[in-house]
Amino acid sequence: MLRNDLVLRALRREPCHRTPIWIMRQAGRYLPEYRAVRSKTDFLTLCKTPELAAEVTLQPVDIMEVDAAIIFSDILVVPEAMGMPLEMIESAGPRFPSPIRSRADIDRLIEPDVSQALRFVENAIRLTKRELRERAPLIGFSGAAWTLFAYAVEGKGSKDFKHAKKMIFSRPKDAHDLLRKLNRVLTNYLLLQIEAGADAVQIFDTWASLLSEDAYKEFSLQYIHETVQTVKLKHPKVPVIIFAKGANTLLRDIAETGCDAVGLDWTIDLAKARWELGDRVTLQGNLDPTILYASPERIREHAAFILKKFGEHTDTSGHVFNLGHGILPDIEPSHLKALIDFVKIESAKYHQNMQTAPSMN
Amino acid sequence: MLRNDLVLRALRREPCHRTPIWIMRQAGRYLPEYRAVRSKTDFLTLCKTPELAAEVTLQPVDIMEVDAAIIFSDILVVPEAMGMPLEMIESAGPRFPSPIRSRADIDRLIEPDVSQALRFVENAIRLTKRELRERAPLIGFSGAAWTLFAYAVEGKGSKDFKHAKKMIFSRPKDAHDLLRKLNRVLTNYLLLQIEAGADAVQIFDTWASLLSEDAYKEFSLQYIHETVQTVKLKHPKVPVIIFAKGANTLLRDIAETGCDAVGLDWTIDLAKARWELGDRVTLQGNLDPTILYASPERIREHAAFILKKFGEHTDTSGHVFNLGHGILPDIEPSHLKALIDFVKIESAKYHQNMQTAPSMN
Repeated sequence: MLRNDLVLRALRREPCHRTPIWIMRQAGRYLPEYRAVRSKTDFLTLCKTPELAAEVTLQPVDIMEVDAAIIFSDILVVPEAMGMPLEMIESAGPRFPSPIRSRADIDRLIEPDVSQALRFVENAIRLTKRELRERAPLIGFSGAAWTLFAYAVEGKGSKDFKHAKKMIFSRPKDAHDLLRKLNRVLTNYLLLQIEAGADAVQIFDTWASLLSEDAYKEFSLQYIHETVQTVKLKHPKVPVIIFAKGANTLLRDIAETGCDAVGLDWTIDLAKARWELGDRVTLQGNLDPTILYASPERIREHAAFILKKFGEHTDTSGHVFNLGHGILPDIEPSHLKALIDFVKIESAKYHQNMQTAPSMN
Repeated sequence: MLRNDLVLRALRREPCHRTPIWIMRQAGRYLPEYRAVRSKTDFLTLCKTPELAAEVTLQPVDIMEVDAAIIFSDILVVPEAMGMPLEMIESAGPRFPSPIRSRADIDRLIEPDVSQALRFVENAIRLTKRELRERAPLIGFSGAAWTLFAYAVEGKGSKDFKHAKKMIFSRPKDAHDLLRKLNRVLTNYLLLQIEAGADAVQIFDTWASLLSEDAYKEFSLQYIHETVQTVKLKHPKVPVIIFAKGANTLLRDIAETGCDAVGLDWTIDLAKARWELGDRVTLQGNLDPTILYASPERIREHAAFILKKFGEHTDTSGHVFNLGHGILPDIEPSHLKALIDFVKIESAKYHQNMQTAPSMN
């Protein structure tokens, strides 16, 4: 049994004595301990060596005392496992030197047995769970089909993702075939992570903001819906979080996929999001990551403001504190620690009006 | 008197027999005629030579038959006029080699007499008005204080604008002093453009999406509000359009600045925006600019969908068709022409149910 299950309780909208916190990209370059491991190996080897992946996954639990670990990996291991060579160039970001453009490119992509092709993630999760010794839950994750599609078709990060956009608008049938293929594999990949021990999973739709509302529903949300339904059918108790960055006018549609929690970027007002979604789902977020550049005093002011925006907890409300996007690589670790320590203490006062006695772990 | 005043009528929510259309960045690199002018001169010289600026401003009116011209210029001429040397490097975008970081940097910025420092824009507007010969209205523009601040503090375009964000969160007083200074100059600059003959003005807040709702209200919207109030007090009949890219959860707040029209990027559903704002303001937008990569047939389908989303016009509704952001430089001109021709014809059927006989010009 987990000694700290606050994140899971919050994701299930069960009473908590305080708001739990974890941080997107919490295992990463801002931590000197991460850089020490990373200096001896390249990024993809780190992802693919379970001992190293487990080591950096545990660092923020040990050092920052976050309430959950998230397995160290990259969303692009999925298209790589489908046959796309992947390059990780430090300064330039990830790159697929042979992006998917033609019908033949789509047909050539394989749908691997994920328990073979992505066994390194399964092993990293098993090892991390062992080394966590029930101190905190472990979150697994995948990119959404649309975000994987955007990278696979474009070949790299981009401002406009014009090749990806061209494909959906000019060849929607091809686009859907590719999205379906990606979605089948990533759904199996999420199931694999849960079967290996992941206590919750998050779907990252980083490039949600590229699409109009209708295009988002057609080219992304229907696939997320399918994934959530499949995961919940097999593992009804494992919480599923959806983080669709920038999709702030579609929060209700996202909540209707059947997920347990909706991740929010910092541009939506948390009070407004709670008002709009009620307590149908847990909300995760949403401090502006650049606030961590300010002094600990200012950070605490802004964090207090986020907690106040969410407001009083009820028996059926859920909030998981997080940033509105990944932590930036040049943040001072002591600033993040100040945030985490503060949220743990300050949030307690919003959890006092519940009917049920909250869990004290 | 203007022979085609449809854009102005739509901005004032007066009856029109069809929906007018203009395109952000309509004078630009996608046009071979623009590239021909540009090949003989650098970008800033083009902005500062009234004959050349007028020439490229008129090109889309002549070639594309848009319903409005927008003066060819750049938002960064304002900080340049305040004493910041500006470099325009073709591949890298605009750059301020000496960005504003310290208190001394802020104090050093001058507040010029815009009729001197930006006389080239005044002259370009006068010349363009003359050469337009009343064929269409001319739109003037400025960046919003926040967007100018973001560039001035960062020194260039950026993903996170960390220096700009650091300043607002760590030194809010300095940030407000700089914003106030920028806002006074840009307000005078808009007034100058109107006095030179601009028939409407647009405020571009390209970097609205960097801020949380509260930060946006504090560091951007209050300045826009001030500018709109000042402009409307002096020129109550000149329509003011606000385009705050990505601020889709703040549309009501934007409408409440007293502006005549709200520009929409393509990620907000136009029907939802109309439902939310009613017919209190005109809506401008909002076709995804990457749709112009698709075939003319697909472009027409998507444009028809936008017109349908806005729906039937009433005596007090206003829609100005536009893209949801600037046209991309590698768009085929014939694709844009297909869009414009289609919108002019297709839109008429939504303008038939008005009480007042619509203007036929």
